[in-house]
Amino acid sequence: MTGTLYGVGMGPGAPDLMTLRAARLIERADVIAYPTLAGAASFARSIAADLIGPQVREIIMDVPMTVARAPAQAAYDQGAADIAAVLDAGQDVVCLCEGDPFFYGSFMYVFARLSAAYRVEIVPGVTSVTACAASARMPLAARNERLTVLPGPLPADELRTRIEDAESVVIMKVGRHMAKIRDVIDALGLTDRAVYVERATLPQELVVPLADAPDSAPYFSMILLTKGADPWL
Amino acid sequence: MTGTLYGVGMGPGAPDLMTLRAARLIERADVIAYPTLAGAASFARSIAADLIGPQVREIIMDVPMTVARAPAQAAYDQGAADIAAVLDAGQDVVCLCEGDPFFYGSFMYVFARLSAAYRVEIVPGVTSVTACAASARMPLAARNERLTVLPGPLPADELRTRIEDAESVVIMKVGRHMAKIRDVIDALGLTDRAVYVERATLPQELVVPLADAPDSAPYFSMILLTKGADPWL
Repeated sequence: MTGTLYGVGMGPGAPDLMTLRAARLIERADVIAYPTLAGAASFARSIAADLIGPQVREIIMDVPMTVARAPAQAAYDQGAADIAAVLDAGQDVVCLCEGDPFFYGSFMYVFARLSAAYRVEIVPGVTSVTACAASARMPLAARNERLTVLPGPLPADELRTRIEDAESVVIMKVGRHMAKIRDVIDALGLTDRAVYVERATLPQELVVPLADAPDSAPYFSMILLTKGADPWL
Repeated sequence: MTGTLYGVGMGPGAPDLMTLRAARLIERADVIAYPTLAGAASFARSIAADLIGPQVREIIMDVPMTVARAPAQAAYDQGAADIAAVLDAGQDVVCLCEGDPFFYGSFMYVFARLSAAYRVEIVPGVTSVTACAASARMPLAARNERLTVLPGPLPADELRTRIEDAESVVIMKVGRHMAKIRDVIDALGLTDRAVYVERATLPQELVVPLADAPDSAPYFSMILLTKGADPWL
């Protein structure tokens, strides 16, 4: 009997925004896994920290900071091999994922490598999208409104076209793309409808109108923009 | 001291996919509130049922089944007034919401009526979007992919244009719009990339390729469509 791999969404950051199922799986885990970036601390692990026992084995997939794909691929190949060895020995592995495993999450790279050969269960989590909307007190989409999620690294021209064409818009991964995104939204005359949120649900959370947002944004930041959401019925 | 209104996301259906914060708030609640449709049982309440004590007061906002807005508005007006009376008396109210309160949820109608005058806290929840992706074992969006959420009631022409223009697509509220949506996706030659999910995470969950989906879909159903999501790194 091989073990089961659990891809577990940890939610947006506040530990009590993880699901009951996630908490139970982590409390019972003998082996956990998670990626880190260039040796930095894992955000997903920090959310789960209070539930991880001292005897738990931790498989760390350390991804180097580079635009080249090969080093990251090698990190996930090695991580998948380490996880597979545990599963082959009959133990389960709980892989910790920021937010939701299938929503811009690196768990997808582990899933792609192991889902054909092993039993994998996905535990969905609260995404940063609805967490930011809650923190901003900003209804995202009602009735027949469309919602468009755009990654901040997209080129300015494409961002402009996509935002023009959208109703409610969420721009993820703002980070170092802040100036470009702000210019696009300014040019569209939509700045007064946009809210900037960083580190939603954490003690350091910041929610401000886009006009007041800092020039340098962390990776975990987002811009919400609604053109006419009418949550009144 | 007036009370606090909590808008609490209950997640997609499985009770253990609610957050730890949601569970704690419901366990401690003296007064809960939720909408019902034409006297039918509340899905949100059913998710929370095991945590609701026998002494809890329940404020039910019963919305009649009609396309006219006025009767629904009257139901939310009355519900908001009932909730306000409890808050004025210094008690908190926990409003139960399917999925997430600000993602196509009726809590937005309560929020619009009470947020200016009362303290309101939003507890985000796992949406049906990532729950369906988990059930379908279908990564939603990776890296710089865009994700577009479309309500099924949109006209066929608009659905067609929006799907053509999108990368990853989620079509919510399929229900009685199944035939129309299926025709649009067929005409675009994308049927073999689409998965149909109903009642995700519940015991009656159904996940099938769109080609094998039933002609009549319940309200809580969804179609996921990715054109080229590449969750391999």
